[in-house]
Amino acid sequence: MKLFGYWRSSAAYRVRIAMNLKGLSYEDNFVHLVKDGGEQLKEAYKAINPQGLVPSLELDNGDYLTQSVAILEYLEETFGGHKLLPETSQDRAYVRSLALSVACEIHPLNNLRVLKYLSNDLKASDEEKSIWYRHWVTEGFAALEETLEKNDHTGKFCFGDEPGLADICLVPQVYNARRFNVDLTPYPTIVSIDQNCQAIEAFNKAAPEQQGDAV
Amino acid sequence: MKLFGYWRSSAAYRVRIAMNLKGLSYEDNFVHLVKDGGEQLKEAYKAINPQGLVPSLELDNGDYLTQSVAILEYLEETFGGHKLLPETSQDRAYVRSLALSVACEIHPLNNLRVLKYLSNDLKASDEEKSIWYRHWVTEGFAALEETLEKNDHTGKFCFGDEPGLADICLVPQVYNARRFNVDLTPYPTIVSIDQNCQAIEAFNKAAPEQQGDAV
Repeated sequence: MKLFGYWRSSAAYRVRIAMNLKGLSYEDNFVHLVKDGGEQLKEAYKAINPQGLVPSLELDNGDYLTQSVAILEYLEETFGGHKLLPETSQDRAYVRSLALSVACEIHPLNNLRVLKYLSNDLKASDEEKSIWYRHWVTEGFAALEETLEKNDHTGKFCFGDEPGLADICLVPQVYNARRFNVDLTPYPTIVSIDQNCQAIEAFNKAAPEQQGDAV
Repeated sequence: MKLFGYWRSSAAYRVRIAMNLKGLSYEDNFVHLVKDGGEQLKEAYKAINPQGLVPSLELDNGDYLTQSVAILEYLEETFGGHKLLPETSQDRAYVRSLALSVACEIHPLNNLRVLKYLSNDLKASDEEKSIWYRHWVTEGFAALEETLEKNDHTGKFCFGDEPGLADICLVPQVYNARRFNVDLTPYPTIVSIDQNCQAIEAFNKAAPEQQGDAV
């Protein structure tokens, strides 16, 4: 398999963690999201993914998958190894809801194309952009922290003592939050789960700074 | 089961369609998103869903599920009846990627809390908000239209001739696009799929105007 990604893309970061957790090897194809207005918006990449977003995953049969959460579900359905989702449907729904509370409620508001729109079209200042960024992270993390604190399933990780789908989405968001100087002290459960993940090789190897295109 | 929703919430609309397609009955619990600053932000509802978002689904055992896409996956795993996802993992990944291209790339940018932030915090004018809204819909629909046009699986619906997960996410987004006067003529495949869905009772009964809280 070949992963089209970018070191700082948190959606690509998710897929890297999952591949590592499952012990799957993959080839990197770096798509530079910033240089020259963004390789993801050029014809060559848009032929692979018309959305102009990373990641895309090229399968061994030459077909492409897009949308990181769909790719994570595919990896879970297709490959053995470390399980990303728990056993019962209700528990699976809970873990998916945690993952989606990051993937649908925080990350889409803070990705590169949105920040660009704020500057270019709404003439937002850097300060206004930072406030915007932190607003959606803190709103999302506050709800997630409360959910994790209240739920008996919370352990070393979002669900019990093995990392899974929710942690895979959470860790890249924590990375981004730190990058944008979000104060994480109000979210001790999130911070502790992130720390527990960082101690695992699969998460560590997937970190942005470990990638071949990191600068 | 009891669905906490709002007639115009497109995430609640998705769940209503899925419940109807699977022939599941449910009780409505309307959460007024606008009145008094929004019932979804009051303590009573946030005890159910700390995110302050609809929908939430109360199960017969009294537990709650949140995040519409997680709820859709739960319904698919738990109940028989109409299938929302195809058979093979690769096809399932494709259908999920279509659904998520709406649920992660269009809808989160255009929901109520974001539009409120644009007005209140960034002092965007109504005209700027409309342009913002249409920007994310047209960008998302252009990519989706291209994907659907190129893919051999596209039929009367997003995947073949039976409606599924992708259509369930698409139809409420088309509804919203029309509400915000987005010109849909560049997206004939999307428009045709929407028309085919509208001819189905399960979609029709789920439409915002058919709900008990519609005004």
